[in-house]
Amino acid sequence: MTIEQARARDAADPLRHLRDRFVLPEGVIYLDGNSLGALPRATIDAGRDMIEHQWGERLIRSWTEGWMASPARIGGKIARWIGAAPEEVIAADSVSVNLFKFIVAALRHDPARRVVLSEAGNFPTDLHIAEGAVACVPGASLRVVERDALGDALDGDVALLLLSHVHYKTAERFDMGAWTRRAHYAGALVCWDLSHSVGAIPVDLAAAGADCAVGCGYKFLNGGPGAPAFLYVAHRHQAAWGNPLSGWMGHAEPFAFADAYAPGAGMERWRSGTPSMLAMGALEAALDAMADVDPAALEAKSAALFDMFAEAGDALGLECIVPRKADARGSHIAFRHPQAEAVMRQLIAQGVIGDFRTPDVLRFGLTPAYTGFEDIARATQMLGALLAPADCTAGPASV
Amino acid sequence: MTIEQARARDAADPLRHLRDRFVLPEGVIYLDGNSLGALPRATIDAGRDMIEHQWGERLIRSWTEGWMASPARIGGKIARWIGAAPEEVIAADSVSVNLFKFIVAALRHDPARRVVLSEAGNFPTDLHIAEGAVACVPGASLRVVERDALGDALDGDVALLLLSHVHYKTAERFDMGAWTRRAHYAGALVCWDLSHSVGAIPVDLAAAGADCAVGCGYKFLNGGPGAPAFLYVAHRHQAAWGNPLSGWMGHAEPFAFADAYAPGAGMERWRSGTPSMLAMGALEAALDAMADVDPAALEAKSAALFDMFAEAGDALGLECIVPRKADARGSHIAFRHPQAEAVMRQLIAQGVIGDFRTPDVLRFGLTPAYTGFEDIARATQMLGALLAPADCTAGPASV
Repeated sequence: MTIEQARARDAADPLRHLRDRFVLPEGVIYLDGNSLGALPRATIDAGRDMIEHQWGERLIRSWTEGWMASPARIGGKIARWIGAAPEEVIAADSVSVNLFKFIVAALRHDPARRVVLSEAGNFPTDLHIAEGAVACVPGASLRVVERDALGDALDGDVALLLLSHVHYKTAERFDMGAWTRRAHYAGALVCWDLSHSVGAIPVDLAAAGADCAVGCGYKFLNGGPGAPAFLYVAHRHQAAWGNPLSGWMGHAEPFAFADAYAPGAGMERWRSGTPSMLAMGALEAALDAMADVDPAALEAKSAALFDMFAEAGDALGLECIVPRKADARGSHIAFRHPQAEAVMRQLIAQGVIGDFRTPDVLRFGLTPAYTGFEDIARATQMLGALLAPADCTAGPASV
Repeated sequence: MTIEQARARDAADPLRHLRDRFVLPEGVIYLDGNSLGALPRATIDAGRDMIEHQWGERLIRSWTEGWMASPARIGGKIARWIGAAPEEVIAADSVSVNLFKFIVAALRHDPARRVVLSEAGNFPTDLHIAEGAVACVPGASLRVVERDALGDALDGDVALLLLSHVHYKTAERFDMGAWTRRAHYAGALVCWDLSHSVGAIPVDLAAAGADCAVGCGYKFLNGGPGAPAFLYVAHRHQAAWGNPLSGWMGHAEPFAFADAYAPGAGMERWRSGTPSMLAMGALEAALDAMADVDPAALEAKSAALFDMFAEAGDALGLECIVPRKADARGSHIAFRHPQAEAVMRQLIAQGVIGDFRTPDVLRFGLTPAYTGFEDIARATQMLGALLAPADCTAGPASV
């Protein structure tokens, strides 16, 4: 596809207007929104308001004027992206810390089951935190197997199946409904890590019958570097489950200053300490900036961007490691290349920002809200120029 | 003291110039910096740079351009306030989450000791989190006793003595050196919560021989609402102790993306998930704004502010619940009053912002960097007017 053809596709794109809601630096083609989402323009004013007005002018009064309620309010705004009821979601802490909460809670749900099952090569923090969490529950252990062995490993010892909905490297998407049913049939709970799906493709936790989920605020939700993460607990579990990180913000009456802990109602109990309001404010501004957008429309655009990139990759002879079937993947594309690290370094130097994932993966995020077809056309042209031998003797080693 | 006399003291105050480094709203006398520190002027530009340049323009590149190193860099800037070496401190998560890490780590230090000892009426999250943490270690329990019973309760079962250096309500200050020696003599470790002392009075963890400490970034350090907290581990424990919240940011090689967790060197292992960079940036700007200030000078100013407030309180017949001896307290003053809640509501309506602490405490923060003598003179005059009966029949019930 030529640049002109790509521009025509951008002009016909029903989501094209969303691009203007984001800051995209001059001279940069940003294909890393799956790692850190771009800055929504509205966040600039929201950040100024948060710092200069809410903190600077209102000071401590802001806690009752909106801050105390913001984790639940923000959770309510995330709900539409994940097929949850507003009161099933709350923003808090990091994905890592939230995974710890759920793994311990799930292991306490059924003391007869002592195994947390996850996938080899899952995002590292999921596995690292699971290691730490099982060490906090007597007799518990972590079982990590390859994806094709998960079914067999899902036996009567498994308390919790912990899966990433979309894989951070290969973009492979689990069939959430099917795997949730499979886990429930085996008597296990499921925790979905939505970090690489939320905000880019539709997620429907309610339809899947999921038990709990965590997700990231700084990828496709564009909440800013290290934005607060979120937690989801299905209504049916909310009263029974407890947060092992039982901090005062999750107390039933935080300002009663009682010595004894009593869990807050609903999702409030999943809070621990005092959250950063600058971080919360940025996440809320980003959610508001996308509140009118249909997740299904984003998925359709993502699929079109992917197909264009994949065809260009085929033409360059690149090995795509992402499933070609649209409903079997997330919203990034990745290729295996023996010199991936050097190629990505060169691309970034030329203004095409994707990333390298060890040991040999070139990864490009496709954020349907702001990535355009011209971006893909230009990026793949530059990638092609880098991979083409400069002359007959120099191969890809020259990059 | 008249307003004119107070102004003369402000004019003679060697720290008076520091006040100009903060935003203090018109018509407000802010005496709640012990709950939320005021906005440093430098943070306005730092916040804009963080959002518009570091995030908006540099995007993912900022992780290698300064973000990844910021928790340790910020920890190094906190070190001077707490008598630590720079490499003994790191900024991360909240006080609550960090307390959890240390309580579990300390209980694993000596499996023969199973008790965490703390003070009744300690700041609630310390006790709440301790409840949750002991439930994550087999056989462990929390023992909570009144302050005067702590010595007797410090027996051979105690793994960890968990104390707040300065009490959030009464401002009582523990003799850190004496209590650390006492705990060590009993074979226990000590964790100091510095939330109500750091940034206002000198703290010397090294001189005290402390084992570990946590502290808050949003009170006297002025890091912003819900600013990142910090952790301190003495050099001698760093290699042996592990973080139960073993997230990827604390991994020895976070970007190797290995399945198995391996703890990072030094304080790096105390990180868990991805921290908010907006929050980290605000905390760093606040630390930089006070980098040239001597903690001992702040303490001297705090003592002078306290004495002035205490004398006015005496004249009003108020019951001060804070020790009068300067080295036995922190940097706020508090009074018991049967109608404390109503009195504080009225004061706030008139622009004097302190806070009410259940059930009957009026609390006023004295932040030596920006609180002036005129502030105290005006605030105590308004307090006096509120407490004086409006006529012969109406008592304090009228407030």
